[in-house]
Amino acid sequence: MPQLRKDPILGRWVIIATERAKRPKDFAHINSAPPEKECPFCRGKETMTPPEIYSIKDSQGNWRVRVIPSKKPFVTFGEELWKKGKGPYDLINAVGSHEVIVETPDHIANMADLDENAIKDVLFTYCSRFKEIEKDNRIKSVLVFKNYGWDAGGGRIKHSRSQLISTPVNLKRVKEELEGGKHYYDYHERCIFCDIIRQELNEGQRVVLEQDGFVVLVPFAPRFPFEIWILPKKHSPDFYKISDDQVWGLSRVLKKTLLKIKVLLNDPQYNCVIHTAPFRRPYPGYWSTIEEDYHWHLEITPHLTRVAGFEWGSGFYICPTLPEEAAKFLKETNV
Amino acid sequence: MPQLRKDPILGRWVIIATERAKRPKDFAHINSAPPEKECPFCRGKETMTPPEIYSIKDSQGNWRVRVIPSKKPFVTFGEELWKKGKGPYDLINAVGSHEVIVETPDHIANMADLDENAIKDVLFTYCSRFKEIEKDNRIKSVLVFKNYGWDAGGGRIKHSRSQLISTPVNLKRVKEELEGGKHYYDYHERCIFCDIIRQELNEGQRVVLEQDGFVVLVPFAPRFPFEIWILPKKHSPDFYKISDDQVWGLSRVLKKTLLKIKVLLNDPQYNCVIHTAPFRRPYPGYWSTIEEDYHWHLEITPHLTRVAGFEWGSGFYICPTLPEEAAKFLKETNV
Repeated sequence: MPQLRKDPILGRWVIIATERAKRPKDFAHINSAPPEKECPFCRGKETMTPPEIYSIKDSQGNWRVRVIPSKKPFVTFGEELWKKGKGPYDLINAVGSHEVIVETPDHIANMADLDENAIKDVLFTYCSRFKEIEKDNRIKSVLVFKNYGWDAGGGRIKHSRSQLISTPVNLKRVKEELEGGKHYYDYHERCIFCDIIRQELNEGQRVVLEQDGFVVLVPFAPRFPFEIWILPKKHSPDFYKISDDQVWGLSRVLKKTLLKIKVLLNDPQYNCVIHTAPFRRPYPGYWSTIEEDYHWHLEITPHLTRVAGFEWGSGFYICPTLPEEAAKFLKETNV
Repeated sequence: MPQLRKDPILGRWVIIATERAKRPKDFAHINSAPPEKECPFCRGKETMTPPEIYSIKDSQGNWRVRVIPSKKPFVTFGEELWKKGKGPYDLINAVGSHEVIVETPDHIANMADLDENAIKDVLFTYCSRFKEIEKDNRIKSVLVFKNYGWDAGGGRIKHSRSQLISTPVNLKRVKEELEGGKHYYDYHERCIFCDIIRQELNEGQRVVLEQDGFVVLVPFAPRFPFEIWILPKKHSPDFYKISDDQVWGLSRVLKKTLLKIKVLLNDPQYNCVIHTAPFRRPYPGYWSTIEEDYHWHLEITPHLTRVAGFEWGSGFYICPTLPEEAAKFLKETNV
């Protein structure tokens, strides 16, 4: 019989439809991508993009990772921040930045195929951008994400890259996690993410990988088949404050996880997003529990099912794969 | 410059990316559907489906609308309801029903092409099913939705139909609306949806249609281009308690709205969902403000943009069409 499972952070019920249970080979592959466009992100094509705002270079002065402003930004730094109300409505101008992090000079599509060293450079670049953006007092939160594949929003250029968007407001999903974490902390005086890690390591059946201070797991109430979270075992609300050792560890763990997904599920499209706390600015008298009740992490969602959009209208997610089975398949995939 | 707009019910910020502004003809059409399967929903194919659980028949005894159980239900009535906890996790068995409402005996794909009388029968059928399902004390909420087109989750059979799922829990999206409505009511002692209707009729620039006691509008902070809400002007939390007159009015308004979408946007795929309050059962001492602070409505979201999935991870929506322009286009589309 199908189960209803509740995500303990967001309070969202998800149907685990075991009657329709799907195994890795059951997912038909989607390939509706139009022809690829000329790649502006390869070595030697630098003039096709706006000037870089950050890069990591090798000893010969060649870039390995390159950050450029988006050509079609969703947000820009052009104006002073203003806020308006009208009747029941609120409105802000979209002050912020929208950057593209080109992860390699080579025309490689999937981050899974970069070596650990290159992934480490990408992670250092994220941290460096966070630290720079934090200096702007108008900015509240930064979102780093990756769209791999056309149907995942990856566009017509395959070159491996991430995007970074900084905004003057909290984004809904992270805000819900902050509220869920605070609610749990207020009662238990413990971080819910730390409790989840303890529970998962104890039960074992949804853990994919435990290595270098990170836990990779399939969540108890996933929205999508083979959804994966990567959590640091060391509690911290802020991704960008991780140590150099953690960056190295994460690059190994991320590479291994992405490869497992690629091998097991036949190179599926996916999204990856870093959930991290908003910047806390030292207002007089301002007090926050975020330090103790939020825990940064990565979420990876492969695009395996066609049913898209209905969930938007209802908040009603139906996952056709048992999380314990998904974790077992991923765990047993050698890479 | 792009704007950040806040949905006043859910508190969700949405980017209105006017720099990327898209007009109706700018949306490339998606057509990745596999070949159609033999249709089990046409007149004469009744033995291909499970026995019907409800129908509306004409004077010759031929069905016009037919309700059948889903062949692959997400929820079933097989067991007593149980609830379990394990560490931080909650689990319920998925008691409920999953029904398919076949909207016509003819092989018509889009509800927009049914006549008003047929749509009226479908709406009466919804109400009738709600009233029957309400008798089961285990059930908390009912969701009625429609997936039109392959990419909207419509599957390999094109025959026009809706689905109904009843569950023992509140679904996240409706729950968020209930909470948003309650929060607003606690402060203002007014229904936020009624306030939105007043504001919209007053401003006028996002209203698509006002007819038969209903308002059709593009919301102030839509997630998707050409997202549309249909709201009854008369306050009520419960869709299924509408009067016969309202059913007639809604069938006319719904037909007109779906036709406008079809004509303006070249027959796009779409999802449609009814948001209505959960059943309120008379517990002793139980008190609720739902009667006054929630307002049922329909939401229609055409599938026009490819970028799917990233929003799931972030709760971060980017709408490439100005709502005021979308409303103007829809308003001016004669059907």
